[in-house]
Amino acid sequence: MPNPTAAALVIGDEILSGRTRDSNLHFLAGELARAGIDLREARIVADQPAAIIAAVNALRSVHDHLFTSGGIGPTHDDITADAVAAAFGVPVGVREDARALLAAHYAKTGLELNAARLRMARIPAGAQLIENPVSAAPGFSLGNVHVMAGVPAVFQAMVAGLLARLAGGTPLLTQSLTIPRGEGEIATPLAALAAEFADLAFGSYPFVRAGAYGATVVVRGTDGARIEAALLRLAALFPEALR
Amino acid sequence: MPNPTAAALVIGDEILSGRTRDSNLHFLAGELARAGIDLREARIVADQPAAIIAAVNALRSVHDHLFTSGGIGPTHDDITADAVAAAFGVPVGVREDARALLAAHYAKTGLELNAARLRMARIPAGAQLIENPVSAAPGFSLGNVHVMAGVPAVFQAMVAGLLARLAGGTPLLTQSLTIPRGEGEIATPLAALAAEFADLAFGSYPFVRAGAYGATVVVRGTDGARIEAALLRLAALFPEALR
Repeated sequence: MPNPTAAALVIGDEILSGRTRDSNLHFLAGELARAGIDLREARIVADQPAAIIAAVNALRSVHDHLFTSGGIGPTHDDITADAVAAAFGVPVGVREDARALLAAHYAKTGLELNAARLRMARIPAGAQLIENPVSAAPGFSLGNVHVMAGVPAVFQAMVAGLLARLAGGTPLLTQSLTIPRGEGEIATPLAALAAEFADLAFGSYPFVRAGAYGATVVVRGTDGARIEAALLRLAALFPEALR
Repeated sequence: MPNPTAAALVIGDEILSGRTRDSNLHFLAGELARAGIDLREARIVADQPAAIIAAVNALRSVHDHLFTSGGIGPTHDDITADAVAAAFGVPVGVREDARALLAAHYAKTGLELNAARLRMARIPAGAQLIENPVSAAPGFSLGNVHVMAGVPAVFQAMVAGLLARLAGGTPLLTQSLTIPRGEGEIATPLAALAAEFADLAFGSYPFVRAGAYGATVVVRGTDGARIEAALLRLAALFPEALR
């Protein structure tokens, strides 16, 4: 059975304005590779309802899963819950179990569960909560769309909890070989090897170190023995390579 | 006149597999903000022709500019020039001026301009070259699509050269205020201020430092005086804030 496919959607003006460098996508990509869920594409959109709705509907319809990051806090620019509800055409409102989570958290910290904070208990109808062990305010899964916070520590904790309950596939394995030659020297034999091992993905990533050109060849796939066979062939082609 | 709009497209399996953390998007976002070109969305796709073609056509049709990163080297996984040519329905082949740039570069470095390296002179018909002062192999602009390398040093040099010839707009200005209170405390007055200054964008980014909650409020816009007025109002609302 092929692995489930996925897309990621990062929501936030701060990424597109250059203020913040996103880290959630890189974290998610690594976790999904380990879980055997194939991340096929990612998008970054601004805090605007139309942009979020269009991206959610485009991505959820062609992938098994859509993971989103950002826009579920208490402030006016946190509009992801409303946009996802609109994308599905379902109502959104404060849900009792989400409110109870917040009430318990704020009782413990001595802060008031005011109207702004209560916004974080607004959950689209039919969604399942995603636990937030860091700061209580939950994410949610609505159908195949998994909505999580943008704060990296919270996002990471939510991903861990969520992946534990999603059906994964065969983990994506990666091996690499560093070859002290320019890409232009290795391109032709590498292309022939990639064509022969068509079930694997071959990437070539050039670098310059101490003025010398080199390339790291990365071989990815789900069959460890095939990857090993490809690596041995590659090492025989380029005996000076370092594993 | 409103600022030109833009999208970014990052092309590369290595980002989606979690191997590499993209840095080009963050660099581009900052440069475009300074140039007064509004980056509205970004996408990351795999090294697959159909995915690249679909993204190029979707993004170039709704934005003034599309900037791409990755996939223009000499190896088999470098398919961006072909995919962009296909998206426009134009032929692609080795172009004499691009070949001359490579020939001069390899003559200087003593390496052979072999068939693999010559792939980097394949340019879609009608394109304008983008200079690569780092390693010679050029990028290109085809219509409103600007195709650049994925290696960060080369990408950055190409962006610098390209932006010098694109018409920009009014730079996006940013000011921020750090407020030592949780987002839930500031959300209501902040929303009222954002509604009053509807020509500016207000973002709120929570953090925890030494166990205490705080939020950085970021105000963005093209009118420096308006941003200053908003900041002064914000500082009056939260006298303990730090600029």
